Amino acid sequence: MSDLTLINIKEEILSQNKELAQELRGRLRDQGVFMVNLMSSPGSGKTSLIVRSIELLRKAYRIGVIEGDVDSAVDAERVAREGVPAVQLKTGGSCHLTAAMVEKGLGALELASLDLLFLENIGNLICPVGSDTGANLNVAILSVPEGDDKPLKYPKIFQTAHAFVVNKIDAAEHFDFDVEAFRGRVRKLNPQAPVFEVSCKTGEGVEGWCAWLADRVEGER
Amino acid sequence: MSDLTLINIKEEILSQNKELAQELRGRLRDQGVFMVNLMSSPGSGKTSLIVRSIELLRKAYRIGVIEGDVDSAVDAERVAREGVPAVQLKTGGSCHLTAAMVEKGLGALELASLDLLFLENIGNLICPVGSDTGANLNVAILSVPEGDDKPLKYPKIFQTAHAFVVNKIDAAEHFDFDVEAFRGRVRKLNPQAPVFEVSCKTGEGVEGWCAWLADRVEGER
Repeated sequence: MSDLTLINIKEEILSQNKELAQELRGRLRDQGVFMVNLMSSPGSGKTSLIVRSIELLRKAYRIGVIEGDVDSAVDAERVAREGVPAVQLKTGGSCHLTAAMVEKGLGALELASLDLLFLENIGNLICPVGSDTGANLNVAILSVPEGDDKPLKYPKIFQTAHAFVVNKIDAAEHFDFDVEAFRGRVRKLNPQAPVFEVSCKTGEGVEGWCAWLADRVEGER
Repeated sequence: MSDLTLINIKEEILSQNKELAQELRGRLRDQGVFMVNLMSSPGSGKTSLIVRSIELLRKAYRIGVIEGDVDSAVDAERVAREGVPAVQLKTGGSCHLTAAMVEKGLGALELASLDLLFLENIGNLICPVGSDTGANLNVAILSVPEGDDKPLKYPKIFQTAHAFVVNKIDAAEHFDFDVEAFRGRVRKLNPQAPVFEVSCKTGEGVEGWCAWLADRVEGER
């Protein structure tokens, strides 16, 4: 008989995380809160999109924000200036948010007084992808200066997110970003997911994204 | 007596990686090859900086390139068009290059006919930081559209890299990037490391970066 014990640690951690994420999703549903997980590279505009979305959606929904960062609280401070409840999670070294981290964030918010919760993941196109946060919706942001080839290099996030926001569209000419080529690459990996072209700087296109998001929130009610 | 066995897997992996990286560094030194590890977010301009550096340094040095990506070979194809030997490493899911991956890349190159080797790490500001690749020099690129606040959010890479390149400096006005604020934040974390402002689009500033790099290569000879 063999004395070998094989423990697949990565799978075990992922399945424990998934279980907790499901539980969080149930808890949020019971409280009537819809959570959106925003993922992107560093500096693509996750916080800017949250701030713009708050401006347009605050009349219809009571909004809260959980910010994830390796260090600093600059993002939560920026969001809090909008007058909505904001929690900053500092992950230290971790390259993505886990359900356990999100649970801590939820504990710091009064869920009964919220309808819509934005979760800003760590700036990274790889690590956050496989780790369920408990969100209802996973949205990936790509900014124009990063280039239209990103679906070729980071296929998993483009295969799995529910929607895409192309930010900094006002700079498309400066960076020779080919929107149609980008849309084609996304369609190939993820035919159903909508792609929104926005500029969080000028506000262009944010309305379309917010209308779509509001539809998703209403669909869960 | 306790039957508990505690295995610190992360530390064990890191120390094995460090050991192999040291060995690779020795192997490269024996062959007279200087290796530069380039790290940045996706789309900051790692490949563009390599292409620009090849243009300026190819007269003085025989150059090779190892490209790391989760998927696709577009970067190695672009570099190969410059007529230098290029290897593409596809990491699948991995968010950083390990010494073992680099060793595979080295095996595909004729080291005896190279002086300078660029290693393009996976696009990510977090995961590549702690993982020694065997390079002589670790350089981080930040592009202007990512914002001047990145040292606050990703301190570890800014504490540990040997030099910084700020790319897309031609777009500084469009994005309200405060170069002096950025330099101050870097200085606080890493007082010795030089910061080069470049535009790989226009070629501005690339000369200064290449002159500094050539000095480092000469210093190892």
